[in-house]
Amino acid sequence: MYDANKKNKKKLNKKLNKKLNKKLNKNIPVPLYYQLKELLLEQIKSNQYSENTPLPTEMELSEYYEISRPTVRQAIKELVNEGYLYRQKGRGTFISKPKIKQEFTKVIESYNEEMRRKGLTPKTKTLELQVEEASDFIAERLNINPNSQVTKLKRLRYANDEPILIVTTYVPYDLYPDLSSLDFNTHSLYDSFEKNNLHIKKVVRSFEARKANDEEVHWMYIEEGDAIHYFETTAYLEDERIIEYSFCSYRGDRNKFIVEITR
Amino acid sequence: MYDANKKNKKKLNKKLNKKLNKKLNKNIPVPLYYQLKELLLEQIKSNQYSENTPLPTEMELSEYYEISRPTVRQAIKELVNEGYLYRQKGRGTFISKPKIKQEFTKVIESYNEEMRRKGLTPKTKTLELQVEEASDFIAERLNINPNSQVTKLKRLRYANDEPILIVTTYVPYDLYPDLSSLDFNTHSLYDSFEKNNLHIKKVVRSFEARKANDEEVHWMYIEEGDAIHYFETTAYLEDERIIEYSFCSYRGDRNKFIVEITR
Repeated sequence: MYDANKKNKKKLNKKLNKKLNKKLNKNIPVPLYYQLKELLLEQIKSNQYSENTPLPTEMELSEYYEISRPTVRQAIKELVNEGYLYRQKGRGTFISKPKIKQEFTKVIESYNEEMRRKGLTPKTKTLELQVEEASDFIAERLNINPNSQVTKLKRLRYANDEPILIVTTYVPYDLYPDLSSLDFNTHSLYDSFEKNNLHIKKVVRSFEARKANDEEVHWMYIEEGDAIHYFETTAYLEDERIIEYSFCSYRGDRNKFIVEITR
Repeated sequence: MYDANKKNKKKLNKKLNKKLNKKLNKNIPVPLYYQLKELLLEQIKSNQYSENTPLPTEMELSEYYEISRPTVRQAIKELVNEGYLYRQKGRGTFISKPKIKQEFTKVIESYNEEMRRKGLTPKTKTLELQVEEASDFIAERLNINPNSQVTKLKRLRYANDEPILIVTTYVPYDLYPDLSSLDFNTHSLYDSFEKNNLHIKKVVRSFEARKANDEEVHWMYIEEGDAIHYFETTAYLEDERIIEYSFCSYRGDRNKFIVEITR
């Protein structure tokens, strides 16, 4: 184990040496920690290192770039905050896995389909599934009468056995009375809609960046204060009725999203 | 000051009383803190309170709902983490301003135009504007030869005098040699493109949720660890050349975004 790390570090150092005849420039007004951060970031972003590769130690970087250790520490801290590196107690600092490029914001597709298309294995754990009375808030979102029945479905979803998101969905009971009898560990919600002639024509999503709450920490093995993508989705049928209102928390450290806008 | 708060609290309590014949249910397996959080959230989200209204105190909520203060504290902590409430030392807990609904992810429009359309006053402070040699990373993003010249423009942007985002833009020098002579405190980049017959046809944006770095904390008066929306944008001209690569940090506490996807 120790040897493998040492070898990786040497390899990384070699790459640093090769790539960076570029040293830091002490004669410009850009802070050194920032220059180092930009250099490391450029290398990480251009995928020069594979995930989980250890970063050279603070001391190695400080010697190589001829800067103080607090300067190195500052650069590394920012890259950890921004999610490009992660720390393991007593083991050091490592290159993060690249985030999954989610097209949740670009195409209407089921999670399972999208994950498979990306070569990842989806898995779902149903946390809640029941018919209940809509709260005023949910009724308003679904554009149904207050106190109407809704099916509530809460799921934890994985990619390659890693928890990626938690989603809570409300569907008007009248539109799909059988919904609560399905097994969502194996069924896809969107497939079930299609099979029941409920064709989604449009989805509107809003999203926020915020800190994780306890439930997210609990289910997704993240830490308090970690960043979360929080989405609210409204899905419309061809006749403009709302078939789905959902909210959904994606881990910030494992997901990035894509949109494409044309004029 | 004190009286006004007291009056507001009374008003809020009255609303709570009226709205919530619904009390917490101690006979279901849903934790009480979570029930309280959901109740408060519903009221906040349906815009029953105006921004900066004080929340009733922990003690008041604990008496009203007949639950312990740690339970109330837990609910409030989560709503603070999620950005619906904010704390002021020695003053209490307040309803957050609603986030600005940004359509940055939905339409191609200049920031100034979008803010004005929403009735907000945009302001820009140019932090950097210079012609420089592209790094390998930037050259690759702009699909130009390494070491070509690029114009780098870094701006802090406000809405109603509140800092909202920091954006750093790279434009190939050859496509717009005059760019660095403009005053971006008054000019819009996208307007300038249009005036120079550089018509953007498509933009691709990817986005991440992560914690703020020092620069973001410094310029946007937020706190270390606060959540940030981090966007990378590539903009294409009609002939497929890339006119812009930019990265952009929006404050998590002040912005939410919208996408619309049709089938």
